[in-house]
Amino acid sequence: MKFRKATREELPLIVEMISNDPLGKLREDFQHPLPEKYYAAFDKINQYENQELIVFENDLGEIVGTLHLTFLQYLTYQGGIRAQVEAVRVREDQTGKGIGQQAIQWAINRAKEKGAHLIQLTSDKKRKDAIRFYEKLGFVASHEGMKLHL
Amino acid sequence: MKFRKATREELPLIVEMISNDPLGKLREDFQHPLPEKYYAAFDKINQYENQELIVFENDLGEIVGTLHLTFLQYLTYQGGIRAQVEAVRVREDQTGKGIGQQAIQWAINRAKEKGAHLIQLTSDKKRKDAIRFYEKLGFVASHEGMKLHL
Repeated sequence: MKFRKATREELPLIVEMISNDPLGKLREDFQHPLPEKYYAAFDKINQYENQELIVFENDLGEIVGTLHLTFLQYLTYQGGIRAQVEAVRVREDQTGKGIGQQAIQWAINRAKEKGAHLIQLTSDKKRKDAIRFYEKLGFVASHEGMKLHL
Repeated sequence: MKFRKATREELPLIVEMISNDPLGKLREDFQHPLPEKYYAAFDKINQYENQELIVFENDLGEIVGTLHLTFLQYLTYQGGIRAQVEAVRVREDQTGKGIGQQAIQWAINRAKEKGAHLIQLTSDKKRKDAIRFYEKLGFVASHEGMKLHL
């Protein structure tokens, strides 16, 4: 599998995967053609060299998953960098093949390459399987992920 | 109280506050003069227009607290922006005066101003008082905050 930055042409595929999920369904607006707001977001993401919207490409050249990595420069941990993972999805017909595990392993290596001391994510407490999945990969649920919708 | 971006000259004061905390003590390297790595981190933070390292200034012109706001452009939530809060500290001799509450209220307003649909943070499960504090301000601990040290 190949992990690389997404192109603008791949955005409909990515938003389809993000929407195709019990929580995603409730909050996304996936249509053909894809609403302009997603393209605007994509362009803004690509303005920052510390953001990487990634796709996973299989041997047939098909996009089978996505994740979004951000490298955050903080003062804490002696001026350390953290990698933050968002919006991890595997294409629905491709689950159960270990693709998610490979993807997170790739993200961990990418974070090390970028000099991050920590990789972090938040997972909805309703996503029990996801939490177990990340725990198996070494993540520790040491923090409360607190959100306030505005 | 005035909330504004920190200057480079204020960095020792900020790192002192970050270090002056049961968890901060274990992971920071606060010394006089302040180690260069903190200045390097400060300069990188200031390269990004989506990062705001904030200080709180009281009526006497003293720095009494700090927080770090980041605005994250994602694809999720229809191409929404999230505000993320890190490293919230109030100067030790200034706690118990409602300064933290004012600061988070300021951060919520700043997030709205920047068009964020959500403000988020993670809080170590050992910081019980902090979690209660954020809950009182409307944050919901809906997510596990998962971390993997590299």
